[in-house]
Amino acid sequence: MTDRSDPLRTWIGSSTADSITLAGRDLPSEVMGRLSLTELALLLTRREPSDGERRLLDAVLVSLADHGLTPSALAARLTYTGAPEAIQGAVAAGLLGAGSVFLGPAGDTAEFLAEALGAHAGGRADDETLAEVARLAVGERVASGLRVPGLGHPVHRSEDPRTARLFELAAAEGLLGPHARLLQHVAGAHETAGGRRLPINGAGAGGAVLVDIGIAPGDVRGVVLIARTAGLVAHLAEEATQPIGMPLWLDVEGRSRPTGPA
Amino acid sequence: MTDRSDPLRTWIGSSTADSITLAGRDLPSEVMGRLSLTELALLLTRREPSDGERRLLDAVLVSLADHGLTPSALAARLTYTGAPEAIQGAVAAGLLGAGSVFLGPAGDTAEFLAEALGAHAGGRADDETLAEVARLAVGERVASGLRVPGLGHPVHRSEDPRTARLFELAAAEGLLGPHARLLQHVAGAHETAGGRRLPINGAGAGGAVLVDIGIAPGDVRGVVLIARTAGLVAHLAEEATQPIGMPLWLDVEGRSRPTGPA
Amino acid sequence: MTDRSDPLRTWIGSSTADSITLAGRDLPSEVMGRLSLTELALLLTRREPSDGERRLLDAVLVSLADHGLTPSALAARLTYTGAPEAIQGAVAAGLLGAGSVFLGPAGDTAEFLAEALGAHAGGRADDETLAEVARLAVGERVASGLRVPGLGHPVHRSEDPRTARLFELAAAEGLLGPHARLLQHVAGAHETAGGRRLPINGAGAGGAVLVDIGIAPGDVRGVVLIARTAGLVAHLAEEATQPIGMPLWLDVEGRSRPTGPA
Amino acid sequence: MTDRSDPLRTWIGSSTADSITLAGRDLPSEVMGRLSLTELALLLTRREPSDGERRLLDAVLVSLADHGLTPSALAARLTYTGAPEAIQGAVAAGLLGAGSVFLGPAGDTAEFLAEALGAHAGGRADDETLAEVARLAVGERVASGLRVPGLGHPVHRSEDPRTARLFELAAAEGLLGPHARLLQHVAGAHETAGGRRLPINGAGAGGAVLVDIGIAPGDVRGVVLIARTAGLVAHLAEEATQPIGMPLWLDVEGRSRPTGPA
Repeated sequence: MTDRSDPLRTWIGSSTADSITLAGRDLPSEVMGRLSLTELALLLTRREPSDGERRLLDAVLVSLADHGLTPSALAARLTYTGAPEAIQGAVAAGLLGAGSVFLGPAGDTAEFLAEALGAHAGGRADDETLAEVARLAVGERVASGLRVPGLGHPVHRSEDPRTARLFELAAAEGLLGPHARLLQHVAGAHETAGGRRLPINGAGAGGAVLVDIGIAPGDVRGVVLIARTAGLVAHLAEEATQPIGMPLWLDVEGRSRPTGPA
Repeated sequence: MTDRSDPLRTWIGSSTADSITLAGRDLPSEVMGRLSLTELALLLTRREPSDGERRLLDAVLVSLADHGLTPSALAARLTYTGAPEAIQGAVAAGLLGAGSVFLGPAGDTAEFLAEALGAHAGGRADDETLAEVARLAVGERVASGLRVPGLGHPVHRSEDPRTARLFELAAAEGLLGPHARLLQHVAGAHETAGGRRLPINGAGAGGAVLVDIGIAPGDVRGVVLIARTAGLVAHLAEEATQPIGMPLWLDVEGRSRPTGPA
Repeated sequence: MTDRSDPLRTWIGSSTADSITLAGRDLPSEVMGRLSLTELALLLTRREPSDGERRLLDAVLVSLADHGLTPSALAARLTYTGAPEAIQGAVAAGLLGAGSVFLGPAGDTAEFLAEALGAHAGGRADDETLAEVARLAVGERVASGLRVPGLGHPVHRSEDPRTARLFELAAAEGLLGPHARLLQHVAGAHETAGGRRLPINGAGAGGAVLVDIGIAPGDVRGVVLIARTAGLVAHLAEEATQPIGMPLWLDVEGRSRPTGPA
Repeated sequence: MTDRSDPLRTWIGSSTADSITLAGRDLPSEVMGRLSLTELALLLTRREPSDGERRLLDAVLVSLADHGLTPSALAARLTYTGAPEAIQGAVAAGLLGAGSVFLGPAGDTAEFLAEALGAHAGGRADDETLAEVARLAVGERVASGLRVPGLGHPVHRSEDPRTARLFELAAAEGLLGPHARLLQHVAGAHETAGGRRLPINGAGAGGAVLVDIGIAPGDVRGVVLIARTAGLVAHLAEEATQPIGMPLWLDVEGRSRPTGPA
């Protein structure tokens, strides 16, 4: 399939004995001391961000970095209980729960919104068009028996405190784009279509904003993992001195009872 | 062991139906729009960073975010080949290789330097003292048949291009502290002790600088994983459109030959 | 949501200070020395297997334990290169590639076949019925632009050597059931429907047989991971003394070239 | 480093368009229908097992497959809560906790016993020699401030119910070898040396028996992961219909309280 003499090409990074290149830039002289991790992350997804875009990315990332003792944080801490010498395993365990239920909806919302715009907006982004796009896209999901991504949260049942703040920051930067605005219409269309009134959740709002600042919808799921890693690392730093994993296990062990087969 | 009525306490984050708190701050009003991901990461390890400390942390993080098609990046890409629908698994696979050989040495160096200062420096940090601490600590490692952390790199055999730049940035911020300076003495002491002349590697330099800006040595291994996640996410965004995993597999498959048992 | 005084109930296992119970049996006296790992695995999915069922499960498991230097095996070996002290991480990295492309199709096939029988067979399993079920189910997939699970393999383009043997073993045990027989009709229906002639792959055949011996379709993806763990552990035992990860990295590193942005 | 025209050699497995070879055997004709998964696992570690060795391996594997709602099982279940579509991630998360504290001690015990015999036994294995080897090896650990592997368990504080049964089975097969017998002396030597009376735990006993049947001490940590995968898969099959992850999270969330910084 490949000619073994073909080079393997990557834009991300490369190194020689005396140089390291990231994203087409010399790492020591053009990246270190010049770019923040957030700016590098944007750059690696091939975006040359404006200051406003960088500030919004930071706002999204900090909003999704942590959410307390979630299943993901608990899995990381319980893994640390068994293997404190391999912290990379505990972080990995925490990330593995970022799927369709938690955090993954950021990417699902991004893809849903981008597809809806592509299918129904005809390049327009006025409010009337977005309302109609929302009506059509929500209708299709409901008709297929599918959930509408970006709506609802098991803890924040009425309002997700991250959402309004994020849209406010996007507006202040002049970057409240068609994906975020469509998501606002989607929430309304869902209620109109007879679904429950559900708040826009923080993951969905973040996913919409990331696409508006130029991140490919398919990359959103990955980008938010950078944020979550920061949160997990903090949990594990705390776990090392104030363990929750071991007492939680002994508590569960004490409460567990065998059941007979069904 | 625990009274089940005891609360589980964490400083990292918590949420109620209408609020989210991170690091003792209200997430929407005090973190979003105010702190970068890097600043939040420092904060979560309970540091209130100065601007210089924040800039140095960013310099360390971008220096360790990626190093090209490393075993870690290849593992992530090959995992994506089999499970493109679960990108969190591909990122996790990449992080799992950040152990004793790659990236983990950042933390090992941090702990080695902190222990050496604790055991031998008596609270002093003048060059003469650090030279003696280095001589003693290197001597102990060599006598025990152990490698000295922070020295040597399989690709950068003569100089690691990240190291001098990082120390220069630390000096410019007035933050070239005792751990980084001790590491410079350690390289010399290793050569004097009859070892090969080995460059200070970027992971070791980064680990030393992180301790100098106040991160606990035991937390260094975790903190550098935040950076590596950003690099892995970039590799996977590229892999989605320019795959290396599948052609690499078919190439390996074509070159593989069965061996008989030893 | 839960009353904290409610017990957490599980059938899998429990322990007290002086006893361990698995699957409702006393581990030391009723499991150890009496059941093989394969029998315990069946039991834990709440099956009391006959001898024939146990032999078929073993046949499926050994058929899916390994397939040479696959992306999954390479990811495990490359992870070991970076973290040889944490072999659980290398095994985990290998398993993480068992998704929609590799190995996961065992479960996808199981669910596809079970749904097709549920929707179209009306409780019958004669050849005429199965041929019609196959025609309908393949037609629905093709009409939706979806691939038909269980067919095709990137290496075994004409015949997958595991498939015929597995069906032969199932027939010899009198356990060639409706799911495996339906899969045979599916391959024919796919060709008739104008698709390419594709072999039934080993994962698909295994998935069909597992449902026929009573494993729930939704559990198939998990059960085959037991087999793959055995293969990965063998690769890592070999990697410890005959490394492929490090030379593969250096080979890739030497072939890699930076690309400019698209 | 490597000549790219060199083949990559592995003994584990290989495939061509129409054949698959595992462990030097033709998979369809020589493995499927002939070997159990347990026998294949032994074979892949290059052992041609006797019937007794195979029975003992099964006894060790079933003894370590599960231990109820352990931190490892909880991490797997909580990961499933967030990503039920990627069961390989939930299994991986569970395995990642098999480190120095849980399950890993099987391998640590195996290496400790093998090193002690190598250093002090001079090829003898009579009881008097083993008692002396135990006294020396325990003394060295205690003098270095290290724990003695294989002793103690947080739940089974007086006796681990797996241990006596496993040694009984080994004796019945005529396979109670020097590693298992040394471990029995180690428990006595630890008490004599002034340590607490600690039971031999099931992981340690299993590790000792695995070395006695010919598995390399360095491979023990990997081999026991095969067993644990079976247990985790069972937990996840149950979690799909009787979830513990979500109620456990909501319970923890309700009990969690923020702390101020230290």
